Formats: sequence, C-alpha cells, structure tokens
Amino acid sequence: MASRHGFKIALIGAGSAAWAIGLIKDLALIPSLSGSTVVLMDIDEDRLALVSRFAKRYVSEVKGNLNIVTTTDRREAIRDADFVVNSTLAKGHGHYERMREVSEKYGYYRGINSVEWNMVSDYHTIWGYYQFKLALDIANDVVDYAPNAWLLNVSNPVFELTTLISRETKARVIGLCDGYYAYRDLLRVLGLEEGKAEVEVIGVNHDDWLTRLKYNGEDAYHLIDEWISTKSSQYFEKWREEQSNPFDVHVSPVAVDMYRMYGLWPIGDTVRSGTWKYHWDLKTKQYWYGPLGGPDSEIGWAMYLTWHKIEFNELKRALENEAKPLTDYIPPVRSEGEPVTMVIEAIVEDSGKVIEVNVPNQDAIPGIPSDVAVEMPARVDAKGVHRLSFSNLPKAWGKVLKYAIMPRVIRGEWAIEAFLGGGRDTLFNWLIIDPRTKSSDQVNQVIDAILKIPGNEEMAKHFS
Amino acid sequence: MASRHGFKIALIGAGSAAWAIGLIKDLALIPSLSGSTVVLMDIDEDRLALVSRFAKRYVSEVKGNLNIVTTTDRREAIRDADFVVNSTLAKGHGHYERMREVSEKYGYYRGINSVEWNMVSDYHTIWGYYQFKLALDIANDVVDYAPNAWLLNVSNPVFELTTLISRETKARVIGLCDGYYAYRDLLRVLGLEEGKAEVEVIGVNHDDWLTRLKYNGEDAYHLIDEWISTKSSQYFEKWREEQSNPFDVHVSPVAVDMYRMYGLWPIGDTVRSGTWKYHWDLKTKQYWYGPLGGPDSEIGWAMYLTWHKIEFNELKRALENEAKPLTDYIPPVRSEGEPVTMVIEAIVEDSGKVIEVNVPNQDAIPGIPSDVAVEMPARVDAKGVHRLSFSNLPKAWGKVLKYAIMPRVIRGEWAIEAFLGGGRDTLFNWLIIDPRTKSSDQVNQVIDAILKIPGNEEMAKHFS
Repeated sequence: MASRHGFKIALIGAGSAAWAIGLIKDLALIPSLSGSTVVLMDIDEDRLALVSRFAKRYVSEVKGNLNIVTTTDRREAIRDADFVVNSTLAKGHGHYERMREVSEKYGYYRGINSVEWNMVSDYHTIWGYYQFKLALDIANDVVDYAPNAWLLNVSNPVFELTTLISRETKARVIGLCDGYYAYRDLLRVLGLEEGKAEVEVIGVNHDDWLTRLKYNGEDAYHLIDEWISTKSSQYFEKWREEQSNPFDVHVSPVAVDMYRMYGLWPIGDTVRSGTWKYHWDLKTKQYWYGPLGGPDSEIGWAMYLTWHKIEFNELKRALENEAKPLTDYIPPVRSEGEPVTMVIEAIVEDSGKVIEVNVPNQDAIPGIPSDVAVEMPARVDAKGVHRLSFSNLPKAWGKVLKYAIMPRVIRGEWAIEAFLGGGRDTLFNWLIIDPRTKSSDQVNQVIDAILKIPGNEEMAKHFS
Repeated sequence: MASRHGFKIALIGAGSAAWAIGLIKDLALIPSLSGSTVVLMDIDEDRLALVSRFAKRYVSEVKGNLNIVTTTDRREAIRDADFVVNSTLAKGHGHYERMREVSEKYGYYRGINSVEWNMVSDYHTIWGYYQFKLALDIANDVVDYAPNAWLLNVSNPVFELTTLISRETKARVIGLCDGYYAYRDLLRVLGLEEGKAEVEVIGVNHDDWLTRLKYNGEDAYHLIDEWISTKSSQYFEKWREEQSNPFDVHVSPVAVDMYRMYGLWPIGDTVRSGTWKYHWDLKTKQYWYGPLGGPDSEIGWAMYLTWHKIEFNELKRALENEAKPLTDYIPPVRSEGEPVTMVIEAIVEDSGKVIEVNVPNQDAIPGIPSDVAVEMPARVDAKGVHRLSFSNLPKAWGKVLKYAIMPRVIRGEWAIEAFLGGGRDTLFNWLIIDPRTKSSDQVNQVIDAILKIPGNEEMAKHFS
C-alpha cells in the first residue's frame, strides 16, 4: 500500500468524542499519514459537528496535514477507504443500562449479560443483538465499498465481533483493544523499566495472560512471586486508602488470587472477568477490587458513565474558549500503546512491528479452535497480520486454557449462535447454567421482561 | 491374533455379579472363543466365589468350552491376558451415596458430582478420585503385564476414564457402553424394523445424538417429527400411567424437548443429562421423566440400588436350587448389543464389524478436540479400532456441539485436571459456576464436609 496523496481513514462511530479526538491527535502526529483524509461518521450530527470542529482546530494548531471531513452516510465514509475503524455502540449506553436494571429485578445482579469470564459491564454479548448486527453491517459495507480496506474493530465485544466478522464476511478485520498495555502497571509496581522488559500476553480479549516476563534477557516471573510475598500487603493497604479510580485494578487482590488459582498473571481487563467468586455482590467486589468495587460495580460503573458526560462537556468548553489553544487540554504527544494508530502506521510503513492484535487463531495458540479470535502479539506489515508461533508455552497454560479460556470461548460461541440463529432457546440455554438462576420460571420471566423493553422489538422478534 | 488354545480374558471387578454372569453367558456362546480362559478378579472373595460357582455351572449346562478361574490378585489376572475388561467401582456405591447425602446438606441436590450434562447418579467424575485412580492403576498394570492386551473399559465414567487412560498410558483402551442401543426404543415406538433401519449416533458417552436415521435406504428423520405431532401425547399419557421402570426414559418428554432445543434426537443416557431445566427437584424430574422421576431422582435411584441387592439374592437362590437348571433363570441366548463380547468377537474373528466405541477422537468428529474420547461407530478388527469419517454431519450438529458437547467436554477436562493436578482450587472452580451455588462460603463448606467423610482421607490430601 502506498499513496502520494495520503490515505482515507474512516472513523465509524466518531461521535465517541473523547476517543475520536484522541485518535485524530495521534493520526496527526504520524508523518507517514501526512495528506490523509479522516472521515468522521456518526448518526449523531451534534456530536459529529463538535468532534469535527475540535479536530480541525487541533490539526491546524499542531500544523498537521490531515483533511477532516464528516458525513452521516456510512457507505460514503467507507467507500474506497484504506482503513475503516469501527468504534460504534449500537443504541448507546442507556439501552444496556435499562436491560441491566430489568435483569436485576429478576435476580440477575449486573444483568444477564454479566457471566463468568465476562463481567465487563459494556461488553455486550448475549444482549448485544443490535451491536452484533451493526458491526456485521459495517463489515459487509466494507466488503462492498472498500474490499481492500483494513477493518480495525475496537468496538466491544472485540472477541465476539472479530470472530463473527472473520467467519461471516471477507472483510480484512483486525480486533484491537488497549487493555493489553496494562502490563505496564505490573512493571511499574515491580519497579522494572519497560525498555529492559520482554513480555508476551496471549489468550482471548479480556481473558489473556502473561505467558512470558523477561528482564534484561532473564526470566523474571519469580519477581512477581517475590513481590507478592514481601510487598503486596503494604502495597494493597495504601492502594485501598488512596483508590480514586475504579479501573485501578490491574495490580490488585483479584489479580494475585487469579495468579494463584490459574498459574499465570492476568493482564488488562482479565482481572475484571473471572467467576462469581469476585462478583457476588458489592461487598465481594469491594473485597477484591478496592473500596470502589472495581469498574463493574454499582459505584465504579456509575463513575464511568458520568466520566463520559464530563469529558464531553470539557471538550465543549475547550472549544468555546477560543483564546486558549486546544493543545493545552490535549498535549500534542502520541499516546503510548494506542493500538489503532500503531496498526495503521505498521501497515502504511510496512514496518513488521509486533503488535497485540485479535485475529482468528489459525492454530497459532495450541488448544484454541482455529476459527476463534485470539489476542496475541503478531507482526504487522503492509500485507497484514503475520501470526507468531506459541509452541513453547509455560506449563500453567494448560490450566488457564481449561478453566479460563474454554469457558469463555463457549460463551462466545453461544452469543454468536444467539445472534445468528436466534430463537428463545439461545437465551434460555445462556441462563439455565447461571449461578444466579434458581428456577426455569425465573429464566423465562427475565427473558420476557427484557424482550418487552421499548427499543427491543426487533430483538424480541429475533428471539421469539 | 489367533490362538489354538483360546484366549485369556480377565474380568477386573467380576464381583459385579449379575453383569459378570451375563457377560460369561455371552462369551460361552461365541464359538470362536472356545477353549478360552476367563479369569474372574475381585477384592470381594464372597462375591467372587458366587460368580465363579454360577459361571462354572452355567458353562457346563450350555456345554460351553470356557475355563473359569478366580483370583484376588489383579496382576495375576492381567498377566499375559488378551483382553482385560474393567468393570470396577472403587469403594462401592455406598461411598458415593454418603458424598451425595453430605452434598445435599449444603444445598447440592443429587450431589456436587451432578452437573449440567452429567446428571447420571453413578457417573462419578469430580468426586471420583478413587475411581479414576483404580482405573489408571489397572491400565498401568495392563501396560506392564499384558502390553498387547485390549483394555475394554466399561467402568463409568467411560468418557473421562477412556480419555484419561488414552492420554496417560500406552494401554490399548476402548471404552464401551451399551447405552447406544437405546436407539431401539425409538425404532420400536416409531414402528420401524431394526433390519431395515440405518442409524448413526455420535458424540461423547452419555451425550450422543442421532446424526442419521434412514429406513429402507431413505432419510427417515421426519418420522420422528410426525410421531411427535400426531402420536406423542397419547403415547406419553399411557407411558405415565404404566411406568414401572425409572430407566424407561429414552422416548420421553425430555427426549422430545432436547430434540426441539438442540435439533437432534438424544440417544441413551443423553436424556438423563442436560441442564438443570430437567433436574431442579423431584417435581421437575417427574414432569420430564414420568412419575418415578427418572433414574436420577430420589425414587428412581433408590429403586436402582435396591435392584442390585435383589439381583444378587436371586443369583444366590438360583445356585442353591440344584434341581433347576441355571438356564431357566438366564436363557442361553446372546444378549443383543452387549458391547464387550461384540468387540472381543470382532477382534478375534478379524471381522471388521462396525461397533459403537469410545476412543480418542483423532479428528474423526469435527469440532471435538483430538485427544478427547468420543463415542462413535467404528470398524473393529484384529488390528483394533478404525475410525470412520463424519464430515457430512447434519446442520444441527453445530448446535449440539456448542450447547451439549462443549460444556460436557469442559467438565471432563476439569474432572481429569482435578484428578491429575489435585488442589482445592480444582474443586472450588467446579462449584463456583454451579446454579446451586449461592456463595463462596457454601462452596468452601461443602468441600470441607465431603473431604471429612471417613474413607476420603487420601482424597482430602490430594485436594488440600
């Protein structure tokens, strides 16, 4: 891929304002993208206008050479694009919060979507009918209107959507999630410098594990054990006292417990997953995730949803103040570990850089089916993703595979089957094995109630 | 394999009196086994003596040419055998009934061993530590003392034990279960003659499904649908009224429901599996399995355990009455579908007969891992088991695989990991996803209580 006039990069769901602006900032700072066009697409015109104004002013401030255009026409955005980034959330957060609320009335704390190994509150799988449909529609548009484009999917559930799109379409999809970079929290706590560390993290999205930790070329996994036995208590005491961010859970009692239970250190949002052992109720969550109960508690999730609003209002205020440069709000420095720009850069520059991606396994990781999207480091160049080999995994991988990955893969298959096949049974079978379920009646009642929520008419038909 | 002097067939666990005597009857009726020696081995000398007396008299009555010997020395029995049949139940039924009773005190109806897709009451997996150990010891003895023997494992759990033995030893193991032959109940109800029917049943033991039904060479699956819509109500009414055998569940409301839910007709003990939908309590079981609640209810299981005693007493009484021939009690006719004698006959006669066996999948059935023991038809001759190909499975197989087989395979992997790896976490992880579990405390309490049962000392150490 080469272009004298730059590339066309379509951001589908660009109304995710803070995220889109952060991404455009990074794109503007990549010299090889000079002259490129960034098409912002969303169905929310107000948000689109705001992001567009912000982006144009920002690019001009940093003297970037990016052409910013907007459209509410998805196919127009996708037509002949080189990169299509999907960051959509069909129906918005509120819709899923209503389903959560209804679920809780029937005894499903945190909603029927929260199950073992998928406790992340906006990782919409079984109730993600509209989200799956939108992602698949976008992928089909890419096939029709930009068949050579790279479809970079950052929309959750990255695991299910990447698997679904790769099975059902010919789109060149790569799933991306920045959760992987949470390994840096571990390095920081262990007092290790990133430049001297070598890490390998594999699994599936939100269920991936540190399979290698080297420092100065030597195996350094034992440093985790030493830190746990000598320093963790003191660390956690301070951490509890000072916790102000519910997402500060990467080095936490739950991470230590998972490491003890499964034999490998959990990375990123893996700590938010696990079984109900960590999630029974707010008290349980506070024990494992600190006083805010982690991101997926009543407290933590309310904070998260509020932040979205705060961020949005801040962007608006920043725009209103024309005297103060936008770079005062968002410094013109590339974000570390922003995966979309890393992948675009690696493809455009044909660099062969190793990046953590989500792609169908194709036998790269032993024990995971071939057509399931795994998260793993891979070499990325102009031809796309080149899988590495993972034949020499630590012994504990077997336990992780059996207790953490296989149950998660099954839930993924069920969510995909529910979306593709429909029918009430796919919901029933999802719930009948749930520890919150006490009877078949309870299952039937919660299904009825969720399908009756306004906005779920099409979904109700699909699952009838 | 050929022998002028017959073969050595070792029955390990020959104290299972009714079963062993039935088997010896069939062996005595196979001409190609004439001159063979059957070694009865058990640690229960009284039972062994009874079976031996019965077998000798029976063989003499039918003028069979089988040499019956007994031993309590397992290795002696196995040494240089051509066939080793494992039908042992370590520690006997009573031990597991005690674990069931303790489980129920902590809210685990039917015991912690009964979980989705394994509700069969003597299919001891997670609490089968001693059973797994005995089966593996026997397999190791076979490797050491009769390396060329065929190890025919009929001991439950056939799925886990066949998988375990094939992974951990070089014994030539074949798992066998007569549950497959329950397809005949379906033919009978549909009014079909066996000779004109062609069936294919695949899956894993106790979780296998009718993937083909032909009659006179034509697809006949639609006959099931027709029977359900036109005749099943009347059939079930009569069936409920007349039910005297809790095992009469192969054609039952639960079979129909599973067929509707998963798209293929469940065969044999598959109807006893499924999720808690069919098993919440006695009332639920009676709804699905008839007034006796199926074999795995308070009623059905008590009947089953009692039958064992009745059968044993009948054998004793038959022996005491020297005037009446034993063939009056057990007619000298070969049992239809007795799998052990069918496999021995096919190997000895190098017949290449197709028999339903349990062996590692080795990619025969798509979607099931290679090293997991599947149940499927295979050609059996002097060289052993030759897998058929199952590339052209019905569309519904995908649903069966995702909702019925994969969850069962995971439980199998967990049971094997618990046995091989030990550690309390393997029990904790088993229970933390159970719908009967309401809290982590409940899990810890039931684990403690089960490990404290007299006789479980070694198991307690293993899981500490």
